[in-house]
Amino acid sequence: MDFQLTHALDVLERTPATFRALLAGLPDAWTAPNEGPDTFSAFDNVGHLIHGERADWVPRARIILAQGPDRRFEPYDRFAQYRESEGKSLADLLDEFARLRSANLATVREWRLGERELALEGEHPAFGSVTLRQLLAAWVAHDLGHVAQTARVLARQYRDAVGPWRAYLPVLDR
Amino acid sequence: MDFQLTHALDVLERTPATFRALLAGLPDAWTAPNEGPDTFSAFDNVGHLIHGERADWVPRARIILAQGPDRRFEPYDRFAQYRESEGKSLADLLDEFARLRSANLATVREWRLGERELALEGEHPAFGSVTLRQLLAAWVAHDLGHVAQTARVLARQYRDAVGPWRAYLPVLDR
Repeated sequence: MDFQLTHALDVLERTPATFRALLAGLPDAWTAPNEGPDTFSAFDNVGHLIHGERADWVPRARIILAQGPDRRFEPYDRFAQYRESEGKSLADLLDEFARLRSANLATVREWRLGERELALEGEHPAFGSVTLRQLLAAWVAHDLGHVAQTARVLARQYRDAVGPWRAYLPVLDR
Repeated sequence: MDFQLTHALDVLERTPATFRALLAGLPDAWTAPNEGPDTFSAFDNVGHLIHGERADWVPRARIILAQGPDRRFEPYDRFAQYRESEGKSLADLLDEFARLRSANLATVREWRLGERELALEGEHPAFGSVTLRQLLAAWVAHDLGHVAQTARVLARQYRDAVGPWRAYLPVLDR
Protein backbone atom coordinates (compact mmCIF):
# COMPACT_ATOMS: atom_id res chain seq x y z
CA MET A 1 0.00 0.00 0.00
CA ASP A 2 1.45 3.35 -0.99
CA PHE A 3 1.61 6.06 1.61
CA GLN A 4 -1.27 8.54 1.56
CA LEU A 5 -1.54 11.22 4.20
CA THR A 6 -5.29 10.73 4.63
CA HIS A 7 -4.77 7.00 5.27
CA ALA A 8 -2.06 7.75 7.81
CA LEU A 9 -4.32 10.20 9.63
CA ASP A 10 -7.13 7.59 9.63
CA VAL A 11 -5.00 5.39 11.89
CA LEU A 12 -3.22 8.07 13.90
CA GLU A 13 -6.47 9.68 15.00
CA ARG A 14 -7.88 6.33 16.21
CA THR A 15 -4.99 5.20 18.42
CA PRO A 16 -5.90 7.08 21.62
CA ALA A 17 -9.44 5.69 21.56
CA THR A 18 -8.09 2.20 20.89
CA PHE A 19 -5.89 2.37 23.98
CA ARG A 20 -8.76 3.80 26.00
CA ALA A 21 -11.13 1.01 24.92
CA LEU A 22 -8.54 -1.66 25.67
CA LEU A 23 -7.17 -0.32 28.96
CA ALA A 24 -9.35 2.27 30.72
CA GLY A 25 -10.57 0.92 34.04
CA LEU A 26 -8.53 -2.29 33.93
CA PRO A 27 -7.03 -3.16 37.32
CA ASP A 28 -3.27 -2.84 37.87
CA ALA A 29 -3.08 -6.65 37.92
CA TRP A 30 -3.49 -6.40 34.14
CA THR A 31 -1.76 -3.13 33.33
CA ALA A 32 1.31 -3.12 35.61
CA PRO A 33 3.20 -6.35 34.73
CA ASN A 34 5.79 -6.31 31.95
CA GLU A 35 7.56 -9.11 30.06
CA GLY A 36 10.89 -8.90 31.93
CA PRO A 37 13.76 -6.38 32.29
CA ASP A 38 13.64 -3.43 29.85
CA THR A 39 10.23 -4.42 28.50
CA PHE A 40 7.01 -2.44 28.63
CA SER A 41 3.88 -3.03 30.66
CA ALA A 42 0.57 -1.85 29.20
CA PHE A 43 1.01 1.27 31.38
CA ASP A 44 4.54 1.81 29.97
CA ASN A 45 3.26 1.52 26.41
CA VAL A 46 0.96 4.51 26.90
CA GLY A 47 3.76 6.53 28.51
CA HIS A 48 6.04 5.66 25.62
CA LEU A 49 3.48 6.91 23.11
CA ILE A 50 3.15 10.15 25.10
CA HIS A 51 6.91 10.68 24.97
CA GLY A 52 6.75 10.13 21.20
CA GLU A 53 4.12 12.86 20.87
CA ARG A 54 6.33 15.32 22.77
CA ALA A 55 9.80 14.42 21.59
CA ASP A 56 9.72 12.41 18.40
CA TRP A 57 7.30 12.51 15.48
CA VAL A 58 6.20 16.12 15.19
CA PRO A 59 9.50 17.64 16.41
CA ARG A 60 11.31 15.56 13.76
CA ALA A 61 8.81 16.58 11.10
CA ARG A 62 9.50 20.23 12.03
CA ILE A 63 13.23 19.69 11.52
CA ILE A 64 12.55 18.26 8.07
CA LEU A 65 10.14 21.01 7.07
CA ALA A 66 12.51 23.77 8.26
CA GLN A 67 15.28 22.46 5.93
CA GLY A 68 17.86 24.23 8.07
CA PRO A 69 21.61 23.58 7.91
CA ASP A 70 21.42 20.88 10.64
CA ARG A 71 18.65 18.39 9.86
CA ARG A 72 19.81 15.75 12.30
CA PHE A 73 17.16 14.41 14.71
CA GLU A 74 17.76 14.12 18.45
CA PRO A 75 18.23 10.46 19.44
CA TYR A 76 15.05 9.08 20.96
CA ASP A 77 14.89 7.86 24.56
CA ARG A 78 12.94 4.58 24.49
CA PHE A 79 12.79 4.45 28.28
CA ALA A 80 11.85 8.05 29.09
CA GLN A 81 8.41 6.94 30.25
CA TYR A 82 9.83 5.10 33.27
CA ARG A 83 10.67 8.56 34.65
CA GLU A 84 7.96 10.71 33.06
CA SER A 85 5.00 8.49 34.03
CA GLU A 86 5.96 8.38 37.72
CA GLY A 87 3.10 9.29 40.02
CA LYS A 88 0.56 9.33 37.19
CA SER A 89 -2.44 7.04 36.87
CA LEU A 90 -3.26 5.14 33.71
CA ALA A 91 -6.36 7.35 33.36
CA ASP A 92 -4.06 10.43 33.46
CA LEU A 93 -1.86 8.93 30.74
CA LEU A 94 -4.77 8.02 28.48
CA ASP A 95 -6.09 11.59 28.74
CA GLU A 96 -2.65 13.08 28.14
CA PHE A 97 -2.01 10.91 25.10
CA ALA A 98 -5.39 11.82 23.57
CA ARG A 99 -4.79 15.54 24.15
CA LEU A 100 -1.26 15.55 22.73
CA ARG A 101 -2.18 13.41 19.73
CA SER A 102 -5.14 15.61 18.87
CA ALA A 103 -2.98 18.75 19.01
CA ASN A 104 -0.25 17.12 16.92
CA LEU A 105 -2.68 16.00 14.24
CA ALA A 106 -4.15 19.52 14.10
CA THR A 107 -0.60 20.76 13.49
CA VAL A 108 0.01 18.21 10.75
CA ARG A 109 -3.26 19.13 9.04
CA GLU A 110 -2.36 22.84 9.18
CA TRP A 111 0.85 22.10 7.30
CA ARG A 112 -1.22 21.10 4.21
CA LEU A 113 1.50 18.70 3.14
CA GLY A 114 1.82 17.90 -0.55
CA GLU A 115 4.15 15.68 -2.55
CA ARG A 116 6.91 18.28 -2.39
CA GLU A 117 6.95 18.42 1.41
CA LEU A 118 6.57 14.64 1.82
CA ALA A 119 9.73 14.13 -0.21
CA LEU A 120 11.86 16.48 1.95
CA GLU A 121 14.61 14.81 3.96
CA GLY A 122 16.05 14.87 7.47
CA GLU A 123 18.92 13.00 9.06
CA HIS A 124 18.09 10.08 11.32
CA PRO A 125 20.89 9.45 13.90
CA ALA A 126 21.10 5.76 12.92
CA PHE A 127 19.65 5.52 9.39
CA GLY A 128 20.92 8.68 7.73
CA SER A 129 18.62 10.35 5.18
CA VAL A 130 14.90 9.73 5.63
CA THR A 131 11.94 11.47 4.06
CA LEU A 132 8.99 13.11 5.77
CA ARG A 133 6.81 10.50 4.05
CA GLN A 134 8.81 7.69 5.71
CA LEU A 135 8.65 9.45 9.08
CA LEU A 136 4.86 9.73 8.93
CA ALA A 137 4.48 6.11 7.78
CA ALA A 138 6.72 5.02 10.68
CA TRP A 139 4.54 6.98 13.12
CA VAL A 140 1.52 4.93 11.95
CA ALA A 141 3.32 1.59 12.09
CA HIS A 142 4.80 2.47 15.49
CA ASP A 143 1.30 3.12 16.87
CA LEU A 144 0.05 -0.21 15.57
CA GLY A 145 3.14 -1.98 16.87
CA HIS A 146 2.34 -0.70 20.36
CA VAL A 147 -1.30 -1.75 20.08
CA ALA A 148 0.00 -5.24 19.26
CA GLN A 149 2.63 -5.12 22.01
CA THR A 150 0.08 -4.01 24.61
CA ALA A 151 -2.35 -6.79 23.66
CA ARG A 152 0.54 -9.25 23.86
CA VAL A 153 1.76 -8.21 27.32
CA LEU A 154 -1.80 -8.55 28.62
CA ALA A 155 -2.24 -11.97 26.99
CA ARG A 156 1.08 -13.24 28.36
CA GLN A 157 -0.30 -13.11 31.86
CA TYR A 158 -2.52 -16.05 30.97
CA ARG A 159 0.29 -18.10 29.44
CA ASP A 160 -0.01 -20.74 32.15
CA ALA A 161 -3.72 -20.30 32.86
CA VAL A 162 -4.72 -21.44 29.34
CA GLY A 163 -3.15 -24.90 29.87
CA PRO A 164 -2.82 -26.84 26.59
CA TRP A 165 -4.34 -23.97 24.52
CA ARG A 166 -0.90 -22.37 24.65
CA ALA A 167 -0.03 -24.43 21.56
CA TYR A 168 -2.79 -22.64 19.58
CA LEU A 169 -2.08 -19.13 20.86
CA PRO A 170 1.19 -17.87 19.35
CA VAL A 171 0.70 -14.46 21.01
CA LEU A 172 1.69 -16.13 24.30
CA ASP A 173 5.20 -17.03 23.13
CA ARG A 174 6.14 -14.25 20.71
CA MET B 1 -1.12 -14.26 37.07
CA ASP B 2 -3.65 -16.77 38.36
CA PHE B 3 -7.00 -16.98 36.61
CA GLN B 4 -9.79 -14.98 38.23
CA LEU B 5 -13.19 -14.78 36.59
CA THR B 6 -13.55 -11.04 37.28
CA HIS B 7 -10.20 -10.38 35.58
CA ALA B 8 -11.22 -12.46 32.58
CA LEU B 9 -14.50 -10.55 32.26
CA ASP B 10 -12.58 -7.24 32.50
CA VAL B 11 -10.87 -8.06 29.21
CA LEU B 12 -13.69 -9.94 27.47
CA GLU B 13 -16.12 -7.05 27.91
CA ARG B 14 -13.66 -4.54 26.42
CA THR B 15 -12.81 -6.37 23.20
CA PRO B 16 -15.75 -5.23 21.03
CA ALA B 17 -15.07 -1.57 21.87
CA THR B 18 -11.37 -2.05 21.18
CA PHE B 19 -12.11 -3.36 17.68
CA ARG B 20 -14.62 -0.58 17.14
CA ALA B 21 -12.10 2.10 18.17
CA LEU B 22 -9.40 0.60 15.98
CA LEU B 23 -11.46 -0.19 12.87
CA ALA B 24 -14.83 1.59 12.63
CA GLY B 25 -14.86 3.92 9.66
CA LEU B 26 -11.46 2.87 8.29
CA PRO B 27 -11.48 2.55 4.49
CA ASP B 28 -11.27 -0.89 2.85
CA ALA B 29 -7.72 -0.02 1.79
CA TRP B 30 -6.81 -0.66 5.44
CA THR B 31 -9.26 -3.36 6.44
CA ALA B 32 -9.46 -5.64 3.37
CA PRO B 33 -5.82 -6.75 2.75
CA ASN B 34 -4.51 -9.87 4.46
CA GLU B 35 -0.98 -11.25 4.90
CA GLY B 36 -1.19 -13.92 2.19
CA PRO B 37 -3.11 -17.18 1.58
CA ASP B 38 -5.09 -18.49 4.59
CA THR B 39 -4.35 -15.37 6.65
CA PHE B 40 -6.81 -12.88 8.08
CA SER B 41 -7.48 -9.30 7.08
CA ALA B 42 -8.71 -6.90 9.77
CA PHE B 43 -12.23 -7.62 8.43
CA ASP B 44 -11.63 -11.38 8.72
CA ASN B 45 -10.45 -11.03 12.31
CA VAL B 46 -13.81 -9.56 13.36
CA GLY B 47 -15.70 -12.30 11.48
CA HIS B 48 -13.53 -14.93 13.19
CA LEU B 49 -14.37 -13.51 16.62
CA ILE B 50 -18.07 -13.58 15.73
CA HIS B 51 -17.84 -17.24 14.77
CA GLY B 52 -16.15 -17.90 18.12
CA GLU B 53 -19.06 -16.28 19.96
CA ARG B 54 -21.55 -18.49 18.13
CA ALA B 55 -19.71 -21.80 17.87
CA ASP B 56 -16.84 -21.97 20.30
CA TRP B 57 -16.42 -20.50 23.77
CA VAL B 58 -19.88 -20.51 25.31
CA PRO B 59 -21.08 -23.67 23.52
CA ARG B 60 -17.99 -25.47 24.84
CA ALA B 61 -18.53 -24.09 28.33
CA ARG B 62 -22.09 -25.47 28.18
CA ILE B 63 -20.75 -28.93 27.30
CA ILE B 64 -18.44 -28.78 30.31
CA LEU B 65 -21.12 -27.54 32.70
CA ALA B 66 -23.63 -30.16 31.54
CA GLN B 67 -21.17 -32.98 32.44
CA GLY B 68 -23.06 -35.34 30.12
CA PRO B 69 -21.69 -38.69 28.90
CA ASP B 70 -20.11 -37.09 25.78
CA ARG B 71 -18.06 -34.04 26.74
CA ARG B 72 -16.17 -33.80 23.48
CA PHE B 73 -16.17 -30.36 21.79
CA GLU B 74 -17.00 -29.90 18.11
CA PRO B 75 -13.84 -29.11 16.12
CA TYR B 76 -13.61 -25.39 15.41
CA ASP B 77 -13.67 -24.00 11.86
CA ARG B 78 -10.95 -21.33 11.72
CA PHE B 79 -12.06 -20.20 8.27
CA ALA B 80 -15.85 -20.09 8.75
CA GLN B 81 -15.81 -16.29 8.51
CA TYR B 82 -14.80 -16.37 4.83
CA ARG B 83 -18.31 -17.72 4.19
CA GLU B 84 -20.28 -16.17 7.06
CA SER B 85 -19.07 -12.59 6.55
CA GLU B 86 -19.97 -12.51 2.85
CA GLY B 87 -22.08 -9.51 1.90
CA LYS B 88 -21.66 -7.87 5.31
CA SER B 89 -19.97 -4.55 6.00
CA LEU B 90 -17.34 -4.08 8.66
CA ALA B 91 -19.85 -1.90 10.54
CA ASP B 92 -22.31 -4.83 10.50
CA LEU B 93 -19.66 -7.16 11.88
CA LEU B 94 -18.62 -4.77 14.66
CA ASP B 95 -22.26 -4.46 15.74
CA GLU B 96 -22.84 -8.20 15.55
CA PHE B 97 -19.71 -8.98 17.58
CA ALA B 98 -20.67 -6.48 20.29
CA ARG B 99 -24.20 -7.88 20.52
CA LEU B 100 -23.11 -11.53 20.68
CA ARG B 101 -20.34 -10.87 23.18
CA SER B 102 -22.63 -8.91 25.45
CA ALA B 103 -25.20 -11.72 25.43
CA ASN B 104 -22.53 -14.35 26.05
CA LEU B 105 -21.07 -12.47 29.01
CA ALA B 106 -24.55 -12.08 30.48
CA THR B 107 -24.88 -15.86 30.22
CA VAL B 108 -21.51 -16.45 31.89
CA ARG B 109 -22.41 -14.08 34.73
CA GLU B 110 -25.75 -15.87 35.26
CA TRP B 111 -23.88 -19.12 35.75
CA ARG B 112 -22.31 -17.73 38.98
CA LEU B 113 -19.26 -19.88 38.47
CA GLY B 114 -17.27 -20.90 41.53
CA GLU B 115 -14.14 -22.98 42.06
CA ARG B 116 -16.10 -26.21 41.67
CA GLU B 117 -17.45 -25.30 38.22
CA LEU B 118 -14.15 -23.83 37.01
CA ALA B 119 -12.45 -27.17 37.72
CA LEU B 120 -14.95 -29.23 35.67
CA GLU B 121 -13.56 -30.83 32.53
CA GLY B 122 -14.47 -31.29 28.89
CA GLU B 123 -12.74 -33.07 26.03
CA HIS B 124 -10.91 -30.94 23.47
CA PRO B 125 -10.65 -32.72 20.08
CA ALA B 126 -6.85 -32.18 19.97
CA PHE B 127 -5.75 -31.65 23.58
CA GLY B 128 -7.93 -34.11 25.51
CA SER B 129 -9.07 -33.05 28.99
CA VAL B 130 -9.30 -29.32 29.62
CA THR B 131 -10.95 -27.41 32.46
CA LEU B 132 -13.56 -24.68 32.25
CA ARG B 133 -10.98 -22.39 33.85
CA GLN B 134 -8.53 -23.08 30.98
CA LEU B 135 -11.28 -22.55 28.40
CA LEU B 136 -12.17 -19.14 29.84
CA ALA B 137 -8.52 -18.10 30.08
CA ALA B 138 -8.03 -19.16 26.45
CA TRP B 139 -11.04 -17.04 25.42
CA VAL B 140 -9.29 -13.99 26.94
CA ALA B 141 -5.90 -14.73 25.39
CA HIS B 142 -7.55 -15.49 22.03
CA ASP B 143 -9.24 -12.05 22.05
CA LEU B 144 -5.94 -10.33 22.79
CA GLY B 145 -4.15 -12.38 20.16
CA HIS B 146 -6.62 -11.11 17.56
CA VAL B 147 -6.20 -7.51 18.72
CA ALA B 148 -2.47 -7.99 18.17
CA GLN B 149 -2.99 -9.77 14.84
CA THR B 150 -5.30 -7.03 13.59
CA ALA B 151 -2.86 -4.28 14.53
CA ARG B 152 -0.12 -6.26 12.78
CA VAL B 153 -1.98 -6.79 9.50
CA LEU B 154 -2.72 -3.07 9.37
CA ALA B 155 0.90 -2.15 10.14
CA ARG B 156 2.23 -4.55 7.50
CA GLN B 157 0.74 -2.42 4.77
CA TYR B 158 3.36 0.22 5.56
CA ARG B 159 6.27 -2.25 5.52
CA ASP B 160 7.80 -0.56 2.49
CA ALA B 161 6.50 2.94 3.14
CA VAL B 162 8.49 3.27 6.39
CA GLY B 163 11.82 2.91 4.54
CA PRO B 164 14.74 2.26 6.92
CA TRP B 165 12.49 2.39 10.01
CA ARG B 166 11.56 -1.21 9.21
CA ALA B 167 14.62 -2.24 11.22
CA TYR B 168 13.10 -0.68 14.37
CA LEU B 169 9.55 -1.93 13.85
CA PRO B 170 9.47 -5.69 14.50
CA VAL B 171 5.67 -5.73 14.01
CA LEU B 172 6.34 -5.37 10.26
CA ASP B 173 8.18 -8.69 9.98
CA ARG B 174 6.54 -10.90 12.59
